[in-house]
Amino acid sequence: MWDAVRTRLAMLGHEMPIAANPLGRYDSVAMHGGVGCVSGQFPLRDGVPVFVGALGSGLSVEEGTAAAEVAALNALAQIERALGDFEGLIGLLRLDGIIASDFDFDEYPEILDGASKLFVDALEEKGRHARSLTVVPRLPKNLPVEVVVTFAYVP
Amino acid sequence: MWDAVRTRLAMLGHEMPIAANPLGRYDSVAMHGGVGCVSGQFPLRDGVPVFVGALGSGLSVEEGTAAAEVAALNALAQIERALGDFEGLIGLLRLDGIIASDFDFDEYPEILDGASKLFVDALEEKGRHARSLTVVPRLPKNLPVEVVVTFAYVP
Amino acid sequence: MWDAVRTRLAMLGHEMPIAANPLGRYDSVAMHGGVGCVSGQFPLRDGVPVFVGALGSGLSVEEGTAAAEVAALNALAQIERALGDFEGLIGLLRLDGIIASDFDFDEYPEILDGASKLFVDALEEKGRHARSLTVVPRLPKNLPVEVVVTFAYVP
Repeated sequence: MWDAVRTRLAMLGHEMPIAANPLGRYDSVAMHGGVGCVSGQFPLRDGVPVFVGALGSGLSVEEGTAAAEVAALNALAQIERALGDFEGLIGLLRLDGIIASDFDFDEYPEILDGASKLFVDALEEKGRHARSLTVVPRLPKNLPVEVVVTFAYVP
Repeated sequence: MWDAVRTRLAMLGHEMPIAANPLGRYDSVAMHGGVGCVSGQFPLRDGVPVFVGALGSGLSVEEGTAAAEVAALNALAQIERALGDFEGLIGLLRLDGIIASDFDFDEYPEILDGASKLFVDALEEKGRHARSLTVVPRLPKNLPVEVVVTFAYVP
Repeated sequence: MWDAVRTRLAMLGHEMPIAANPLGRYDSVAMHGGVGCVSGQFPLRDGVPVFVGALGSGLSVEEGTAAAEVAALNALAQIERALGDFEGLIGLLRLDGIIASDFDFDEYPEILDGASKLFVDALEEKGRHARSLTVVPRLPKNLPVEVVVTFAYVP
């Protein structure tokens, strides 16, 4: 399935990124007893922000959606690195999306769909998930979105 | 227990709502290996906001508490639909509450107790849970509260 | 291992606090099927805020880091009370950190490292975890940080 996921990504014009190292005293992924947690992932590529700014005045819906997609790709890379491949992945459980936006912006589902669609396109049934949304005025480094993933794996 | 939950709700003057469909490319509930996650639920009834506004200037403590209760009812409906009934529910694990409020509002536990009390009243022991609180200036559609539930079930 | 954890804390100049009671209709810890959730913990000691204010104008990075450490100690006390000791703890899974800050503050990893480092110092391998970060303008009682922990235990 490893190849299958990368092939599907390639067909969508994406490449699996290198899983980033943590920015502090935590691990990128923690796994115990069948439950895995991926640390918050951001729209960075090789450590450089791909998008900067809050949704609304700073970034358009299209840019925000693409930013969520990049963050989801980074989460995917973390899961692959942690499990070795996607064979042992049972499925995603929960995607917590945190969006930085202006006070009057209100198109949040579209933004997080950038991440949700990427997961389902890449992992098919295994990519389906529940979702929560938190909206804040600002995220670290003025990044527009953070994606936090919980998954189930074969222990 | 299905009937028992609905009976208890009726005694409290509540009716089990119809579980709402997701607003984007996610599922209302994801379940794997004994852990279930309900997507963020809001104080909507038949898709229409029951309460709008932030706590403080917009809504009173009583209204906010009632809003959390409506969101919790929606989460309950999602769990029932996902499991078929509440027999297979082992118990709630975690309730993440996200509240939109004015900067100087500070009665958050009362608000989330609207949800917590509903869960314990409806599900008794199975409704007990840990809780976290996030306070933000605004939620989608100017809704006052979001309730995110994680639960354990018999796999 | 109970003694080992307290000994390590003592060597770092910390004392295991008394696990606080919940502030509402929830439980401090919920555990089912191997997954445990600790309710949001704050930088309180004996119910009294140790630090008050948002990061930036209100509190320095050093104070914020110390506040996260106090909140982590409180989470540790909750896990100990729930499990009896740390023998049955398999390991932490996820630390969700919520920080109250000024709009232009941007040293969040340092703050949450106060909690992350405490967990790893006290629990060693068992203290490792994934991490997410949410930044908000304000938290209840004007507290600077909230720490929400998920862990795995021997069921």
